[in-house]
Amino acid sequence: MQKVIVESPQTKLQNDLILRVARGEEVERPPVWLMRQAGRILPQYRALRGKLSGFKELVETPELAAEVTIQPIDELDVDAAIIFSDILVIPEAMGLTYEMIEKKGPFFPETIKQGADVDKLASGEHAAAQLQYVFDALAITKRELGGRVPLIGFAGAPWTILSYMVEGQGSKTFSKARKLLYQNPQLAHQLLQKITDTTIAYLKLKVAAGADMLQVFDSWAGILPKAQYSAFAIPYIRQICDAIQDVPITVFAKDAWFALEELGQLDCNTIGLDWHLDPQDVRQKVGADKALQGNLDPCLLYADEQEIATSTEEMIQRFGKQHIVNLGHGVYPDTPLPGVKCFVNTVKAFRY
Amino acid sequence: MQKVIVESPQTKLQNDLILRVARGEEVERPPVWLMRQAGRILPQYRALRGKLSGFKELVETPELAAEVTIQPIDELDVDAAIIFSDILVIPEAMGLTYEMIEKKGPFFPETIKQGADVDKLASGEHAAAQLQYVFDALAITKRELGGRVPLIGFAGAPWTILSYMVEGQGSKTFSKARKLLYQNPQLAHQLLQKITDTTIAYLKLKVAAGADMLQVFDSWAGILPKAQYSAFAIPYIRQICDAIQDVPITVFAKDAWFALEELGQLDCNTIGLDWHLDPQDVRQKVGADKALQGNLDPCLLYADEQEIATSTEEMIQRFGKQHIVNLGHGVYPDTPLPGVKCFVNTVKAFRY
Repeated sequence: MQKVIVESPQTKLQNDLILRVARGEEVERPPVWLMRQAGRILPQYRALRGKLSGFKELVETPELAAEVTIQPIDELDVDAAIIFSDILVIPEAMGLTYEMIEKKGPFFPETIKQGADVDKLASGEHAAAQLQYVFDALAITKRELGGRVPLIGFAGAPWTILSYMVEGQGSKTFSKARKLLYQNPQLAHQLLQKITDTTIAYLKLKVAAGADMLQVFDSWAGILPKAQYSAFAIPYIRQICDAIQDVPITVFAKDAWFALEELGQLDCNTIGLDWHLDPQDVRQKVGADKALQGNLDPCLLYADEQEIATSTEEMIQRFGKQHIVNLGHGVYPDTPLPGVKCFVNTVKAFRY
Repeated sequence: MQKVIVESPQTKLQNDLILRVARGEEVERPPVWLMRQAGRILPQYRALRGKLSGFKELVETPELAAEVTIQPIDELDVDAAIIFSDILVIPEAMGLTYEMIEKKGPFFPETIKQGADVDKLASGEHAAAQLQYVFDALAITKRELGGRVPLIGFAGAPWTILSYMVEGQGSKTFSKARKLLYQNPQLAHQLLQKITDTTIAYLKLKVAAGADMLQVFDSWAGILPKAQYSAFAIPYIRQICDAIQDVPITVFAKDAWFALEELGQLDCNTIGLDWHLDPQDVRQKVGADKALQGNLDPCLLYADEQEIATSTEEMIQRFGKQHIVNLGHGVYPDTPLPGVKCFVNTVKAFRY
């Protein structure tokens, strides 16, 4: 199932390590980046953020989004940039506005409750075209990166996006979203299809704007029973993977230890792993052809540098080749920068 | 490893189904109860709660705690009562007061940050003796139940209690608590030992006050990497299981799919399962001798009654014998009462 990606002739990347691993090619060391690297761990990010009205101003101003996307390349020298944005731009493009409340997280003043709410949502190319600020941010970033490293674009997986659109905010249980799956599965499927159509159009426009690679985040994968994950999550991620053929794509279904075999059947290049998963167990379940991404415990970066270095090297050895180094979750905002740098530098000094 | 429990001669229970399953005896149908059954799903609970100053008044007033403990026996006719209380009475008895903030959850004005904070905590029998209101509630409940069903006492597992004492409140990541394990593992072990000593004394006093069975809740088991769960959680749960020899004990380590083999080695009678776990897989991992408790998806109780009944029966059949029926998590507060009753009645009508 390894997807064959034809390298586009205009790409002149000085460091294409992550793309080579995703394509199944030999590399001398694993590439490394961090989920949420463009964010609060960097003093230069916090300085810029402090001058703005809020998180959404940063997301919606292409020059600023590009600036914070490039900050970790300058500061940490990681092997990939990931565009600074949010998975919730998709519901917004579909007609459901979100707010980002400081120290609380996302909040939707309106939520999806019934068929009429789904009917009036925009979807597909028409909805995705609302997100010009993201495509502009990608184009600016791509130009300013000047080929230093590949640029990753991303989207939430349809189930995770539905969770927010129905629940209206973060939740320990997402019981409102999960109630919909039991009480009105047909409506859930209608909504998931609209989200999927929009996400596919959005990711294609991201590639057109310069994304060299894509990642789909299923942040709330782990709250569904296995049978519901198979029915309400996997088919829509599959549609996305099948639709994206020009660049490598990573699927990160957090806490979905019970769905690894199904994830292994997707037409994706890379599978992201949280910090509970054992590389050998995963390899057995997903088969030989995918690259694996992850999965150091993000809290390990609170440890002293000796422990960070040792654990990072052990992890690399346990994974073997076909591995993109990352944490098993987005880096936590209060992670000390020296710990992050020690992690990155340990990977960069490693040779297979 | 099945623990031999000598039935105490003064117990004259009319329904001892749950104890018989926990002891490994044959039963004609599985017993059923729900985690958090003594709570917001019942209108009579909400009516009483509305008259009080707050959650803690209910926890700390034995007559009222006994009243809400018995409500689900009257209303739902479940096979066990569980004392109305909170796992956070233990940190409070040790000297760390908690508040329960409406719609937000627990909050600790003071948290554990350093050695001196641990040193000044009370522990063991001295600390547990502070919780007379819990023992009184048990004694009243036991008397008022009149042997209708067994009474379950409970405590949080030491890792979960530490999480709250260090983090100070609920959290998506518990990164402060987890930071301690990396930055000061010795202090974490000191704190865990003090919590364990207090918990053992507390559970013994609960048994003396009338608890027929005990359950240990490791609510945040699932956020630790496997190696840390083995090092910081399992040894303390083991101490508790080893210390309790008079009544059956259940260990429920939520989301700890990676620790099932180790849980199977504990000297406990029953292992609680969240809704992700497959009974056959679990049986293979924990061995033949334990009873298993769980694990219907709590959101299934939002479905229509036909689906609840069918799914409940299927679950019972998949577990086979040695099974205590429950949900895979505490029942959600907005669960419709007819759905809960359908679930309970389906189990009670079942025959092996």
